Amino acid sequence: MQRHFDEELNLLKENLLRMAALAESRIRSCIDALVSRDEEIAKKVIESDEQINNMQMEVDETCLKLIALHQPTAIDLRFLTMTMKISDELERIGDLAVNIAECSQKLITEPLLKRLIDIPRMARLAENMVKSSIDAFVRWDAELAKTVCENDNEVDGLKDQILRELLTYMMEDQKTITRAIELILVSRHLERIADHATNIAEDVIYMVKGEDIRHHAMEKIK
Amino acid sequence: MQRHFDEELNLLKENLLRMAALAESRIRSCIDALVSRDEEIAKKVIESDEQINNMQMEVDETCLKLIALHQPTAIDLRFLTMTMKISDELERIGDLAVNIAECSQKLITEPLLKRLIDIPRMARLAENMVKSSIDAFVRWDAELAKTVCENDNEVDGLKDQILRELLTYMMEDQKTITRAIELILVSRHLERIADHATNIAEDVIYMVKGEDIRHHAMEKIK
Repeated sequence: MQRHFDEELNLLKENLLRMAALAESRIRSCIDALVSRDEEIAKKVIESDEQINNMQMEVDETCLKLIALHQPTAIDLRFLTMTMKISDELERIGDLAVNIAECSQKLITEPLLKRLIDIPRMARLAENMVKSSIDAFVRWDAELAKTVCENDNEVDGLKDQILRELLTYMMEDQKTITRAIELILVSRHLERIADHATNIAEDVIYMVKGEDIRHHAMEKIK
Repeated sequence: MQRHFDEELNLLKENLLRMAALAESRIRSCIDALVSRDEEIAKKVIESDEQINNMQMEVDETCLKLIALHQPTAIDLRFLTMTMKISDELERIGDLAVNIAECSQKLITEPLLKRLIDIPRMARLAENMVKSSIDAFVRWDAELAKTVCENDNEVDGLKDQILRELLTYMMEDQKTITRAIELILVSRHLERIADHATNIAEDVIYMVKGEDIRHHAMEKIK
């Protein structure tokens, strides 16, 4: 019974990793659509959202089934309820990639405002945070989770920098305003992706350390 | 044992309702701070965020304890894992109220851009959606949950209207740009609050109807 349960847990972990890989690829693709001004890529991100949604429901059902059937111990129970939460976060990351793809679609139809440097950098950071947070979860690695929380500051810094730069464009030329606002919204969506990764990382630290730092993670890290 | 468990479930419901009431009052307060330009109210919203966070952890712990001790049936298990998810959503609604309070703090220090009409309206809608979604959950009321999903369209409409109006301000006078952007961000935070309520409502419909409409709720409702 226990061996069977362990096998099911491993299968679940694999599914979660697959779901995370999909979410990461969505982040890459929606920014790729924006940078290379490729309408087709944007469309694909939007159309394929269903796939992550379906994976989320599957993970959810599996967790509930395992809890109901195996009456897991405290630690396994925590692992399963956390997996449900994490699949939720990943599903929302997929939604945010869709939002970014929609911004990209609007921006593609208008002249290029500026060469994008900080937004792709922010996207890479956010993507890495998602990857590391999931790795930290499946490896039970609080140290890795801490680096995710620390990276969140860098993302916030980039977000502020992007806003400041775009403000100067808007101030100088009102014709840039609608495009600049779309780019500001893209940066906010990326910030939220990073926030989701941070949520996961904080839960991991909580789980490993057995104390809840979810709501004051950075204070304790410093 | 079952009677004791039922009592614990009722207590949990009460705690969730208390948490929801707190989240609703935060939405009111942060918009109140914005409309009445009251720095003190904004500060209070920011400082009291800890309270919702603590309630979330408490609800979380109670759910885990009840699952571990009582090995609940499928339906009670679903209720408990949903309660954990919902307390997560409420905690994030609290965070968004903090974000709005921070925008308010910035806006208070600058001259009034315009009399606010649509933003308070959007806030009232979002607050009602939160209230109804929680009521739908504790009363197991799929019809009420559906109205929440339907209201989300209205919120999205207001969001677009707010953006269009603020764009005209920015186009006419570049001195309004930074303030207009803060107001746009406020409207996006409110949109996200409404999204959290919609998430809860979709979960309720899923739970009651026993089919997952979470990811295509509106199609099925129509």
